[in-house]
Amino acid sequence: MSPISHTLTVALGDRSYDILIGTGILPMLGAECRKRLKCQRIGVVSNETVAPLHLDRTRDSLEQAGFAVTPIILPDGESHKNWLTLQKIFDALIEHRFERGDLLLALGGGVIGDMTGFAAACYQRGVAFVQVPTTLLAQVDASVGGKTGINHPLGKNLIGAFHQPTLVLMDVATLETLPEREFRAGLAEVIKYGILWDREMFAQIETHLEAILARDPAWLIALLRRSCEIKAEIVAMDEREHGARALLNLGHTFGHAIESLTGYDTWLHGEAVAAGTVAACHLAERIGICSPQDSRRIQTLIKNSGLPTRLPDYPIDHYLAAMIHDKKVAQGKIRLVLPEGIGRSVVRGDVTQADLAAALTTGME
Amino acid sequence: MSPISHTLTVALGDRSYDILIGTGILPMLGAECRKRLKCQRIGVVSNETVAPLHLDRTRDSLEQAGFAVTPIILPDGESHKNWLTLQKIFDALIEHRFERGDLLLALGGGVIGDMTGFAAACYQRGVAFVQVPTTLLAQVDASVGGKTGINHPLGKNLIGAFHQPTLVLMDVATLETLPEREFRAGLAEVIKYGILWDREMFAQIETHLEAILARDPAWLIALLRRSCEIKAEIVAMDEREHGARALLNLGHTFGHAIESLTGYDTWLHGEAVAAGTVAACHLAERIGICSPQDSRRIQTLIKNSGLPTRLPDYPIDHYLAAMIHDKKVAQGKIRLVLPEGIGRSVVRGDVTQADLAAALTTGME
Repeated sequence: MSPISHTLTVALGDRSYDILIGTGILPMLGAECRKRLKCQRIGVVSNETVAPLHLDRTRDSLEQAGFAVTPIILPDGESHKNWLTLQKIFDALIEHRFERGDLLLALGGGVIGDMTGFAAACYQRGVAFVQVPTTLLAQVDASVGGKTGINHPLGKNLIGAFHQPTLVLMDVATLETLPEREFRAGLAEVIKYGILWDREMFAQIETHLEAILARDPAWLIALLRRSCEIKAEIVAMDEREHGARALLNLGHTFGHAIESLTGYDTWLHGEAVAAGTVAACHLAERIGICSPQDSRRIQTLIKNSGLPTRLPDYPIDHYLAAMIHDKKVAQGKIRLVLPEGIGRSVVRGDVTQADLAAALTTGME
Repeated sequence: MSPISHTLTVALGDRSYDILIGTGILPMLGAECRKRLKCQRIGVVSNETVAPLHLDRTRDSLEQAGFAVTPIILPDGESHKNWLTLQKIFDALIEHRFERGDLLLALGGGVIGDMTGFAAACYQRGVAFVQVPTTLLAQVDASVGGKTGINHPLGKNLIGAFHQPTLVLMDVATLETLPEREFRAGLAEVIKYGILWDREMFAQIETHLEAILARDPAWLIALLRRSCEIKAEIVAMDEREHGARALLNLGHTFGHAIESLTGYDTWLHGEAVAAGTVAACHLAERIGICSPQDSRRIQTLIKNSGLPTRLPDYPIDHYLAAMIHDKKVAQGKIRLVLPEGIGRSVVRGDVTQADLAAALTTGME
């Protein structure tokens, strides 16, 4: 019997890869990489917070499988997700003479995953990379889909690439040390999958919220598995984000505006998505596509999960300006993902400025 | 009858695109873009040297076809092929609110093409781009193959992406204003295609060198067509540079070392490739895979084209160190493309340091 509870395959033709999910499976990382990769050298990119917790075990496992490990430790935080920090990865790779056949491994949360993936996409025009996400947010969201990138002073993730990993390994045991606030922020993305795609999962989170907030490994594994299945299914339908994939941005256009207005260092991404999802509910209810009952259930679950449900207080104009800079804009029209109730969402490009402003006002109350 | 002499299709599945070749065809750019693209906005990236020569006609043609044009003018030269200059493209795109459906167009030589392509690969994780190469080097080489990128202080093109254009338009009339030295540097890449793939084209260049150096449009069109055909054929076999595509680097490992040692601002790329190709001949002759007769013909044609045949005088150790930083290194071994005579080349990873050093010494004499 293997401690790997589930192996999901993300089906993307010759860019397909496996996601391994379990508890206490980090020591198997080296052997799982060796099965898939012939390279000698691995650059392990992590940050000052995660490295003291998980780097030694990661390194031991990789070295036992015969890899030479170069740790590349970056400062922690979204504010470092920029070109300057990316340059540190490139400098280390060049200094240690990394070649096209070598590998980058991301050990950390979403910021580390996005930057490592982008560095892997660009170094010598592309090297392979492996993800070992250590936050719930990164496990549930950032590690599936191949989106990589850095922020620009004027907007999040404006510079990046699509670059699929070779392998993703998720050990829910790494979540034991995750700060409570970050854990709940990750849960916001799990709830998002319930709202946009799976009414039954949403109901299970409602029913078992206590065990989930207590980080019961069996529940975490089940939720991760289902969330990744949903995301993998949507990404396989639309790898380059021309259609269905837009649904994954439920709560994100509002959420990005919150992050942009508050400067990226006050709200966690998942918190912004939670408040953004509530704003999307207000708007959906207002234009008559979501029942008040479902809207109320969504708001209650987000609130009971200890997540924010109100938008921070900024002038409506500032919200509108921030939303227009978002990537999900086509021909100057803001396209919004809105819930049509629990388990089903839709992309709408026809929302009037008046309805949007009214929903923003309600969201701030 | 159309002034477009040839339309080549680069066959890369759903990334296939057309190359249009002719003389005086720049005014058709707008209509040809409109056939293929629905977008409203085009960012035309050019430099301070090329823009005064060709920007007005480019802009007129695009505007007549209904596009809104934003010119983005960069400083000229390889020394500006870096992150700082790339950032100027991103800043302009964000300032003018470019969206994922909009287009970038490269109007200039290889540096403009590489940077514009890389900006297009990364802006919002990928927008479309069109190439209008205005130098012989860019027409014959940089505009086919999808390689984009910028330099790192420690090496050329170390940061980049594979990103295929939607269309390439080559107007040989733009070569009329090209400085003589740059024209000859471009010819070095044409000669390279003859050496590595097409003995007959090589012989035709030998025979008609005078007309070619006089920039006879009919000859230029014929050589461009054949060179692009060869490159397209090789790239289609190996888009991501795992195998056959390495042949295109004939002369380039030596050439990159020259550029790195001289600081990128003394030698033109094509000049470095020319001297690098001669060095490759010395090595091929030395290890017995190229006849002295063919080696002599190659050196003579390069010399008669007004191109350098001797390596600049640096210590052998410096050459070896510069060559090991090149991307075409696998597992610490330098892999070199060497001619097996005119019309045929081979990748060799087994050249001894002694043979390499001896060939470098001969190349400096």
